[in-house]
Parts: sequence; C-alpha cells; structure tokens
Amino acid sequence: MEHRILDMVSSPADLKVLSNEELAILAREVREEIITVTSETGGHVGSSLGAVEIILAVHSLINCPKDKFVFDVGHQAYAHKLVTGRLDQFKTLRTYGGLSGFPKPGESPCDVHPSGHASDSLSVALGLAKARDLSGTDEKVVALIGDAALSGGMAFEALNHIGQAQTPLVIILNDNEMSISRNVGALMKHLGYMRASSQYRQTRDSVQEVLESSGALGTALANFGRNVKESMKQFVLPRAMIFEQLGILCTAPIDGHDIGALRETLATVLATDAPVLMHVVTRKGAGYAPAVREPEKFHGIGPFNIETGELKKKPASAPSYTSVFGKALIEEARRDDRIVAITAAMKDGTGLSAFAEAFPTRFIDSGIAEEHAVGLASGLAVGGMKPVVAIYSTFLQRALDQLIINNALPNLDVVFAIDRAGIVGEDGPTHHGMFDLAYTRMVPHMRVLAPSDEAELVHALHTALALGGPFAIRYPRGSAEGVPLPDEPEVLEVGRARVMREGSDVAILAFGRMVSRARGAAELLAARGIEARVVDMRWAKPLDADEIARAAQTRLVVTVEGGICAGGAGEGVLAELSRQGSDVPTLVLGIPDTFVPQGKADLLLHDLGLDAEGIAASITKRLNAQDK
Amino acid sequence: MEHRILDMVSSPADLKVLSNEELAILAREVREEIITVTSETGGHVGSSLGAVEIILAVHSLINCPKDKFVFDVGHQAYAHKLVTGRLDQFKTLRTYGGLSGFPKPGESPCDVHPSGHASDSLSVALGLAKARDLSGTDEKVVALIGDAALSGGMAFEALNHIGQAQTPLVIILNDNEMSISRNVGALMKHLGYMRASSQYRQTRDSVQEVLESSGALGTALANFGRNVKESMKQFVLPRAMIFEQLGILCTAPIDGHDIGALRETLATVLATDAPVLMHVVTRKGAGYAPAVREPEKFHGIGPFNIETGELKKKPASAPSYTSVFGKALIEEARRDDRIVAITAAMKDGTGLSAFAEAFPTRFIDSGIAEEHAVGLASGLAVGGMKPVVAIYSTFLQRALDQLIINNALPNLDVVFAIDRAGIVGEDGPTHHGMFDLAYTRMVPHMRVLAPSDEAELVHALHTALALGGPFAIRYPRGSAEGVPLPDEPEVLEVGRARVMREGSDVAILAFGRMVSRARGAAELLAARGIEARVVDMRWAKPLDADEIARAAQTRLVVTVEGGICAGGAGEGVLAELSRQGSDVPTLVLGIPDTFVPQGKADLLLHDLGLDAEGIAASITKRLNAQDK
Repeated sequence: MEHRILDMVSSPADLKVLSNEELAILAREVREEIITVTSETGGHVGSSLGAVEIILAVHSLINCPKDKFVFDVGHQAYAHKLVTGRLDQFKTLRTYGGLSGFPKPGESPCDVHPSGHASDSLSVALGLAKARDLSGTDEKVVALIGDAALSGGMAFEALNHIGQAQTPLVIILNDNEMSISRNVGALMKHLGYMRASSQYRQTRDSVQEVLESSGALGTALANFGRNVKESMKQFVLPRAMIFEQLGILCTAPIDGHDIGALRETLATVLATDAPVLMHVVTRKGAGYAPAVREPEKFHGIGPFNIETGELKKKPASAPSYTSVFGKALIEEARRDDRIVAITAAMKDGTGLSAFAEAFPTRFIDSGIAEEHAVGLASGLAVGGMKPVVAIYSTFLQRALDQLIINNALPNLDVVFAIDRAGIVGEDGPTHHGMFDLAYTRMVPHMRVLAPSDEAELVHALHTALALGGPFAIRYPRGSAEGVPLPDEPEVLEVGRARVMREGSDVAILAFGRMVSRARGAAELLAARGIEARVVDMRWAKPLDADEIARAAQTRLVVTVEGGICAGGAGEGVLAELSRQGSDVPTLVLGIPDTFVPQGKADLLLHDLGLDAEGIAASITKRLNAQDK
Repeated sequence: MEHRILDMVSSPADLKVLSNEELAILAREVREEIITVTSETGGHVGSSLGAVEIILAVHSLINCPKDKFVFDVGHQAYAHKLVTGRLDQFKTLRTYGGLSGFPKPGESPCDVHPSGHASDSLSVALGLAKARDLSGTDEKVVALIGDAALSGGMAFEALNHIGQAQTPLVIILNDNEMSISRNVGALMKHLGYMRASSQYRQTRDSVQEVLESSGALGTALANFGRNVKESMKQFVLPRAMIFEQLGILCTAPIDGHDIGALRETLATVLATDAPVLMHVVTRKGAGYAPAVREPEKFHGIGPFNIETGELKKKPASAPSYTSVFGKALIEEARRDDRIVAITAAMKDGTGLSAFAEAFPTRFIDSGIAEEHAVGLASGLAVGGMKPVVAIYSTFLQRALDQLIINNALPNLDVVFAIDRAGIVGEDGPTHHGMFDLAYTRMVPHMRVLAPSDEAELVHALHTALALGGPFAIRYPRGSAEGVPLPDEPEVLEVGRARVMREGSDVAILAFGRMVSRARGAAELLAARGIEARVVDMRWAKPLDADEIARAAQTRLVVTVEGGICAGGAGEGVLAELSRQGSDVPTLVLGIPDTFVPQGKADLLLHDLGLDAEGIAASITKRLNAQDK
C-alpha cells in the first residue's frame, strides 16, 4: 500500500498528468481499494470493478465538476468516488453517516444527481446539455450507462430525443453482457452481434485471458499492444446501427479495460460536435476472480472473505421474506397452472430463481422494464393466466400508471408481490420502499396485504391468488420473524385483522413488520402500567372497521407502519375513525415527511422511532400530554 | 342513409363476406357515421377517421372476440365500435351512461382492455400472446399503435421483449406522421425515411389528391389500381430497419386507406409464424376535409358544424385554466430567462403553443415520454434552469418515480404544472386526474398548490418559481372561475390558507376547484341556519396548521377536494388534527374508493356529491347525526 498513485490523487485534475501506464497502475490500486473496503462493508462489487478504467479515462479527459459525468444506476461509481476526493472516507461506504453507495449531490460537487434507479442518466444528461446550450457555456456532458439499463423505456425515450436534439453529448455504453440476472431482450442480441465482430473478438479474447488468470487481488491490466492510430475508424467498423438509426453516432465496441484505447476513442468522441454513443465492452468483476466467476452473487454483496470470495456473514436463522415468497409461489404454481411469475431483471432478488427452474415457460423476465412488466401482466390476466409480478417497492414506482390503468381499472387477477417494502438499509434513500402503502391504497379495486411474518406472507399470497382481482402484497427486505411456516396456506378473510395481545388502555394497530415492534412496545408499556391491545391489521386495504371501532374504545389509537405517513395506512385508519364519528385521540407513527438516509435497517428504524422503544416512548409521551 | 352496408353489420363476422369494393363503401359509411355523431358529441375525430380502413381490414380477416385486437390509446377505435355490434348505441358516444370514447371491457367482448394511455398496447398484446402459448390455443393477436405512441418507453420495452420472445403477434404501426401536436424524436425521422421511399410516395400522392378533393362529408375511397400480387415483396422493400434489428419483421409502408392492399398484406402477416410489424401510412382525419386541414383541432374536439368544421360551442366567458397558465408562464419567462417549458406531446393541450412561439429555444416537447420529460427537467435544473413540466394529472402517473427520485430527492427547482386535475368529463376513467393530490403530497420535499381560481393559479406559478424547490401546481380542465387576473403576481406565503367566508358552526376546508363549490354549499347551509366558515386551503402541502386549529373550534371540520379521498389532502387534515390532539368531528369529502365513469364534469361531480348541493347535504346529514 506504500507509494500508491491513488494516495496522490486528490481531485480528477491529478489524473491529467498520468501516462496510460500510470493510469493502468492506478486502476489496479483502485481495484484493490474497492475489494478491500467492500469486503468489510459489502457493496456493488462487480459493476464497480468493471467500470474502473472507463471512469479513470473519463476523468483524465474532462474537468469535473465543471464538466458533468452522469452515472446510470450509480452502483458502478466507486472508482469515481476514489478519484474525486473521497479516498479517506471510502471505508465508510454504505454505512450510517458515511459515503453513499451511489453518486449523491452534496457528497461531492462531482456527483451530478442522485443515481439509484436504472435508465435515467440519458434524460438527465440531455437536460444538462440543453441547460449548457441555453446558458452559452461549453461544459462536456458524459453519461455512463450499462447495457441492462438500456432496456428501460426511459432510456429509449431519451435516446429518441437525443437523436433529434443533436447537441453534443457522450454516452458511454458499458456493455458487460450482463444485467443483474441474465440479459434479456432483443436489443441485447443486437449488441451481441456487434461484440461478435472479429475485430472486437480478437482484442477481447486477450483481455479475458489476462483477467481470468489474474488471481484474487486484481491484475495489472497489461497494455494489449492495441494501438489505434486513427480513432475515427471506430466510426466505420461494425457497430450498433440501431443507435445510428436514431441519429446517434456510434463507435465500434472497444475493450473497456484498455485504458489507452479508451482514452484515444474518448478524446475523439469528446471532440465530436454531435451526440455519440461509445460502445465499450467490460467484464463485471474484472480483476477479481471470485467476482468474475459469480457475477450475480457479486452484483450486490455483503462483507466477504477476500481470498475465497465467500460471504462472511452466517446465514440468518430465519429465512428471508424473499425466499419464503419464492417457495410459496412454487407451491401455488404446482396447484394452479395458470400462475405465471414476472420479474423485471431481479430473478434472484425477488426469490424467483427456483421458480424459473421449476416452471421455465411460466417464468418471464422482462428485463429492466417495470412498465412493460406490469402491462404484460395485464395481457396475461386477460388471457386467463394469473400473473404474479414481483418487483421491489421502490422500482414499482415506475409502473404506477400501469398498475392503475392496466390492472386495477379492469379489475384483473394480478398479484403485485412488492418486495423490499419499507426501510431497506445500506442502499439508502433511492432504495427504501417508503411509498407503496400510499400509492397502492389510493387505487380503487386494489386490495393491499401487509403480512407481519413469513407464515402470514404464505397465507397472503394464497389469499390473493384464491380471491382474484388486483392485489398488492408488501413485505420487507431481509430475515423474516422466524415463525413456523404453515403446512397448508389459508385464505384470509378480507379486511379482517387479528388481535395479537389484549389491553384496554391503548390500541396499537400495526402493519407488516411493525407488528413485532408493536408487540415489543406493548411489553415495555406493560412494565409502565399501560396495557396495550396490539392488532396485526393484515390488510392495509380494506381496513378492518370493526377492529378500528374496538380500538376507539381505548384512550388512544396508535397506528404503526413502515412507510411514509402521508397517504399511508395510518391515515386510512384516521379516515375510518372519522367515518365512525369517533373522537378518540390518535397517534400516527411511520416515516415522517423526509427522505431516509442509508444505514443498517434496525438503526434507521430506531432513529425513526419505529422500534419497540421508540413506539413505546411516543405512546407514553402522548398519554402524558393527554393526562395534563 | 338507406340501404347502408353498415346497417347489415351486426358483428365482425359480417365483414368476411364483403368484397374489397364493398368494404370501401362500408368505410365511407363508417366515416359518415363518425362525422355525424361526433359533430354532436365531440370526440377523437381525426384519429378515428384515419384508422377506418385498417380496422375494417383487420376485422375482415380475424375473428373477434376469439382473436384479440388491442388498441393503443384507443381514440382511433370508433370504427371498431361500429362493426362490433354497437351501431345503435353509437350516438351515445362519450355521454354519461353511453358508449365510452375508448375500448372498454364490459362494453363488448371485442374490447380487450381499457385503452386510454399511450404506448401500452404492445405489452398487453404480448401478454395475450404468451397466455395463448401457455394455454395451447391459437388465437391471433393484433395490436394497433400510432407512430406517436411508439416514442413512449413502455412501447420500446415491449418491442425489445417481443423481438426476443418471437411468438406470433401482429403490430400494425399506424403512421400518420402526426402526434397530437407535432411529431418529435429521432424514431419519427427514421420512419420518415421509409415513407420517402419512391414506391410508397407514388401511391401516397394519389391518395392525397383524392382525399384532399373529397369535400365535406367524406369520399368514396377509390381503388387506386394498386394491385400487389405478391405481398411478400413487402418484406424486401425499404422498411424501418430499426424494428428488424430488434428481431421483429417489418413490412414496407403501405397505403392505409387502400383496403385491398391492407387486406393482402395483413393476410400474409397474419400467416407469419413470428412477430411482424406492418407499417401502414394514413392521414389523420382522412375523408373529412376540415379534419385533414386542422389535425390538431380535430384530434379531440367538441361538437362541430359538419359543413364548416367550426366548433358549435361559443367560447366560454371565462378563460380556461390551461390558457391562463400558458399566458402566465410567458410573463414569468420574460422576467427570468432560466425558465424552460416542457411538454410531453401536449403543446396545445397544456397551453404552451404561444410559449413555444415566444421562446422556441426554451420550449421542449419530449414527445409521448413522460418519464424522460421529468428526468430531463432534473438535468435542466441541475444545469441552472428552472424547468416547468406541464403534464396532465393522469399522465404524470407515468413519471411518479422520476418525480420522486430525480426531482424531489435532490430538492431541485422543478415545477410540475399538473393540468386536468380532478374530474375531466367525457374522456372517462382513464383520463380523470384523481390521484395527483395523493401521489404528490406523499413525497418529501414536494410542495403542492391547488389554486382555486385563475388568479390563484397565476400567483401559484409565480410562487413556485420564486421560491424554488420541487413544486406541484394542480388545476382542472376547462373554464376557470371568471375572476379578474392580477396585474402583478404575488408570492403566496407557504402553507397559509385564505378565509373566504366566516362562520362558526362548521368549517369547510376546500382545495382547488372545490372552493367555489364549498362557498355555494355555505350559502345553502346559511339558508338552513348553519353558518359555515369556508377556507381556500391553497396549499395541499404544507397544510395550514393554524387554520386547521381554528377550524377545530367549530362543530365539524369538513374537507373537500376533487381527487380520491384515500391518501388525499383531507386525510392530511385528519393527520394534522390528530397531531394537534383535536377531537372535533370530521367529514372528508372527495372521490370515494371507485373509478369514475365518463360524462359531463358537472354531472359527475353532482353524482359524487361534490357540487354545492351535495356538499351541503353531506354536512347537514352529518350534523343531524351528531345532534342525535
């Protein structure tokens, strides 16, 4: 670790004096740093290792923050963080109060916008380019987007506009032949033809040889002797014509781990007075054999052993909600061959890998394309199938309109399995599932279930499939509660809550993961002489009006949910109490009107007052105020 | 009108016995019917006239409802309604209780899904095709999509998947060289090259000659002597390669008003064991000279004079909210050259035509691409501009994720001008703006203004631009209240309501358009001896806590809004009252948990109890119940 070039880089300007050879050494140091730190913090290892040379090449040729470097998704930006003055803080990556795992305005002037969701970089980049043109300034705008993110419709909308607008703008297509799960889509095939061109293959093969023999801790990326004198020839070699038909010049694929080739082509591209797409082929996890071997595992990973690539963390004793969902869906699918599972490029993340193996024809991966996934579910349902759409809470925001118009309005049999609902932890504000209770319960015809443990999740899924109609089932990231799973799933009575604890002073109406916290709070309150009734509401919609009426017989009705308060289930309870003409005091607990930072989920929930202590404290405080 | 073929068509099966010549006559009769009826009801005249031959050709070759015919947007489907058993009801088009202006499941088994929003047909069609393949049945699936809707990212997502899935599916691209406003985007240019191919131009020119000389009431569409013997040659003529690169066979453009050519090509395409895109060129308004002359006016039009094409309705005495917004934005833009206006293919509809003329470089039409439009705004704001994104409430649902992640999270200076908020009227459930209050107020950093008249709208826009940060301003379709416009716009105090009427029995807290209804209700209540305080809340977020506290001093706090109750502003008031520890009885008025049908807006609001009488009645009933 001595005499590292990396330690002398305090801003991107420092890269400009480095030779290609020095930049290649720097790339190795950056990789070592990324692997060392993420082995402790976890993170998006594969993507970040794959983009090291691209990022160094860009920063060696443009001037951030004056010039704008926009990252798509942003999980590939660790090298960017390391060369823009954040080396010292890098060990705090993804921790509470530390560096974000994504570009984040406020963290550095070099971070243009809050990345996290796929396919938005081209729109942001065009906006920056248009702002430049209107202001009469001359900054460069560079967007870095992966091949998987190109399948998102928003990216196509932007390409269509960029091709028309014809203002200078560089799109670096980081083609790593991988989305988070497998690539899907015809566009990928098209890119594949380009990669297959002999000129590219020749270079590529030698890259792979070196990378694959590079051992555990990265490799000196050799200069492959490729010395393109006339970069403009990039524009005439075989290339992805689909972009050119949209009016965007496109370069032939080049090796994204060859810093010399990258810089040469990029210099040409940056000097072009038009939008250009620079096609770069990289390997996810490049320079770290375990990540190359298991790209899906190393997409987003917890702390790991550097030598072996094995996860440090022991598996939790309780299964994850995700895996319980995946297994329960397989059981349902065995009983009903109309069930079809849909994911949007999150096969593993949504627990559908085993389903895909068991029922390959009844598993559909739409790619990163949530809008289409939900529209597709509508067609399947009209055609007599029972689609189950498994999408993370934060990404389903992309398909709200389709959920409303294509599924809820015609009252179709579609189940939305909303994973990662509530606080997710280290991925931070772009990934917390804060809004799903609000945006599902506002929609007519929708029924919304918030299972409080894994057994309830099994029942919820069975209920939704048995009853039909548009259903949302939302459940959190991570380990479930550790309760036994049912032998046979049951059909839950619609709009019927279950009482978990009796008590006459206070009624706590809790949703989903908050039920166990509410029970903990009740224990704490009991020690203070306050007896709390605890209700697992089960249904965020329709609410159990009878149970709410019973709750109104206590001194205080408390609602607790893991999502945003505004528009959430707690407000639904208030509305029901209003209808009932109740004058019982109420307390609505949930996420207040703020975005929530990154950190361990339990820590964040504590900060939000959404653990047992916090809930008990809020209730005690409120009762004390009432007693005055 | 005697001896019409149309009168003998009771189902699509009846088309199968007709010759091309008879179908051409039927096309003329369908046009006459459309023009006659829409001249009374208003409607989407241009698109429906343009698609007559396509629809007849499809129904003459497939078997609905067994086969599936999916319409994109659905405003072109009038001919479909006329030949699927709905001729008798056609005069009720778009009226309360009558035929929907869009395909609508439940209205006919031939209507597959509720159209209304652009770019979703291909996803639905692929879902239907997948359901067919899983069921082992053999129905045909045909989707009809306009060129403008192709710019929507969801359509691209579906094309990408269709190209990969390779299951038989026919996409008819109705290329009328027009979106609602002007075409935008590079894809359109690409299609343009195809249209320019000499083979196509030759046919097209002769079509246009005949159409343009066809007089007021349609024309017999002559058989142009074009007799393509070998339809397969369509596959080798110049065609839109962009689709073929996605793995979708594509035909060369054919004349969409030549029923013989359409049927010949369609027969070939339907027999193809793969997805095929059939490129058809039509003219919006074909067969009706006024609609051809003024396609934007006749896109969606009120009742008109058949001879002249002039609107029957006298212009309202009050300007529309839309036009007030457009003028106010021009004034703001004169004072601040950072203001940029963005529309998503709704330049006229959002009142931005004059802005576009006054500030051509500061006006951006993203095409039908709401996600991109909102992402673009984010880039413009980061680049120092002040973007104002004008999108209808129902279509902004498409960009919720971008509103949250790209604009609200980084707290950017972006104004969302949300037109068509609340009940819109004849366009029905896909077009009512029911959800915007709920989906904007749940988002941290957002401030939400609901101006109650056109003067307030001017102030609201000025306030948003003056204060910065993410703002939503929502206002309804149609005529404003007729109040004088201010000489100078003011900066409204954040979170401060204004009292419109004093009264101590009841407090009515009203939002937006509901303020005038609430005032009317107060007059009715006064006649019954109930004195109501009426408050124009102005801000749906942040709410005026002081004014809510004052309201709690009355016997009943009533909230009235024009959107869905669940998650809406009224529930926000309940939450504030909960925080304040108030036990005042409350009544939340708005749209209940249901989709709202089509009809005149005033009629629908009456049905919903959201006119003065309804509001007064709800309040009286509630007070009576309390007094018991």
